[in-house]
Amino acid sequence: MLEKVELLMKSHIEAIGDSHVLGLYEKVPKGKRLRAKLILKIASQNQQAIELAAVVELIHAASLLHDDVIDDALTRRGEDSINALFGNKTSIMLGDILYAKGFFELSKLPSQVAQIISNAVVQLSTGELLDVELAHEFNTNAELYFDMIYKKTASLIEASATAAAYLAHKDVHKYAIYGKNLGLAFQIIDDILDITQNAQTLGKPALNDFKEGKTTLPYLYMYEKLTQIEQEKLLALFAKTLSEDEASWIQAKMQDTQAITQAIQHAKKLGEEALQMIADEGSTDLENIMKAMIEREF
Amino acid sequence: MLEKVELLMKSHIEAIGDSHVLGLYEKVPKGKRLRAKLILKIASQNQQAIELAAVVELIHAASLLHDDVIDDALTRRGEDSINALFGNKTSIMLGDILYAKGFFELSKLPSQVAQIISNAVVQLSTGELLDVELAHEFNTNAELYFDMIYKKTASLIEASATAAAYLAHKDVHKYAIYGKNLGLAFQIIDDILDITQNAQTLGKPALNDFKEGKTTLPYLYMYEKLTQIEQEKLLALFAKTLSEDEASWIQAKMQDTQAITQAIQHAKKLGEEALQMIADEGSTDLENIMKAMIEREF
Repeated sequence: MLEKVELLMKSHIEAIGDSHVLGLYEKVPKGKRLRAKLILKIASQNQQAIELAAVVELIHAASLLHDDVIDDALTRRGEDSINALFGNKTSIMLGDILYAKGFFELSKLPSQVAQIISNAVVQLSTGELLDVELAHEFNTNAELYFDMIYKKTASLIEASATAAAYLAHKDVHKYAIYGKNLGLAFQIIDDILDITQNAQTLGKPALNDFKEGKTTLPYLYMYEKLTQIEQEKLLALFAKTLSEDEASWIQAKMQDTQAITQAIQHAKKLGEEALQMIADEGSTDLENIMKAMIEREF
Repeated sequence: MLEKVELLMKSHIEAIGDSHVLGLYEKVPKGKRLRAKLILKIASQNQQAIELAAVVELIHAASLLHDDVIDDALTRRGEDSINALFGNKTSIMLGDILYAKGFFELSKLPSQVAQIISNAVVQLSTGELLDVELAHEFNTNAELYFDMIYKKTASLIEASATAAAYLAHKDVHKYAIYGKNLGLAFQIIDDILDITQNAQTLGKPALNDFKEGKTTLPYLYMYEKLTQIEQEKLLALFAKTLSEDEASWIQAKMQDTQAITQAIQHAKKLGEEALQMIADEGSTDLENIMKAMIEREF
């Protein structure tokens, strides 16, 4: 099924009729296709599910192309990013093409589905701007962090689940909550891995978030438990390139304060709520997606 | 009517609920609102015309925000561009937000309208990439130029006219041709003004296109008529910052070879074809839009 999504995405790009665009598209790192998997698990019996999955993955790929320009990211999932290979401008233009093609194909799906997905893209792009704004100073407000990751990451996953449930005539509300919590947990785990994993596993430098000014959930939890002197030390390192000693100090304090454990607990709680919500739907696949998400190491 | 479009656009942005986004939006230079005027002239009796006009202008504004990043443009219609004021990244993100909000509102309109407009945005973004590709060397192929300006500029104007005619139950084919030719003429005149007008009138440096590697229609016509030595001189100046003497030489040769006159003639011919096409529709407004477009000086 996922193979069909991949082929449909490619045929959408081929239909643009520009070999340069197709060549660039083929160099875009593919990723896990989490959103497509989710849609197929929820609405596999529906013919439009593959269409929806292809549209959402095109839109997601577009958002990552712009994301990598915004974050100056030279790698994506261990591969060279498009901006690293061909420059920021190409990445912006290719992102626009994938967005536009995604929206064009989306406009052929039921209007309700088109509204659910395009509304999520408004949130997603607003979330990206919020993420950059929050990075201007050390953020100690967890509510702002959760609002930002909801918009930036969870909104499109929530919309994928909701739209798939709509197509499959399932309970839209239940799947919306499952998708939202899956998205929030996904981002929290991503933010944890940035601290606990090494560069090789991540496919990008470790502790990169903090250097980029991103005060993610473990930093929020850790900060609360540090002494005043330690807090000042942490603030002095904010958004700087860290020495090995400084990086080790942060990682040690993450363990001492149990900030990592606490963040994992939060992700697990979100996961449990989501599984409760769909308990009656009898989908072991969705249970497995959530479990694998929380237990993943990259 | 145009006032209502302006208010609706603003209320769409307000509905996102992010004061930073609204503040940025209010600093985006407004422009002529050509596409909105066209839609209102064709479909003014239809309630959805204002909605369509607001959507198209949001999408157009988004494309210009990215365009200015791609072209390193520091001014837009004589005002500071968003990238000049707040940097490229903010311009990319705000563009994404306006695109997404435009597509969200578009998805509430009839599916046929949503497909016409979103298909044009695929063309538009592909055209932007083509424009950059063509600028790598002196282009002597007029067909490539016309294909590029059709995609980059005419496609969304054509789609605006087509979608408006669809809403107003008018002859879609006739208005499509009118819109396409209006768009092509618009871009040709824009490209001529870059050569004939001074920086103050343009709100950006004169002869900027050639410096950016853009071989527009007058350059194509001029090149054909130059001696071999003059051709070599022109090629040596391609994509360089010009001295006053070099700029004057180009402008003089444009007159000598009648390249400007020839390009104006081409725009006029497109205009006449368009007016013939809608002659039976009895719209002096559309005639006036076309005439003003061709005779404009900025």
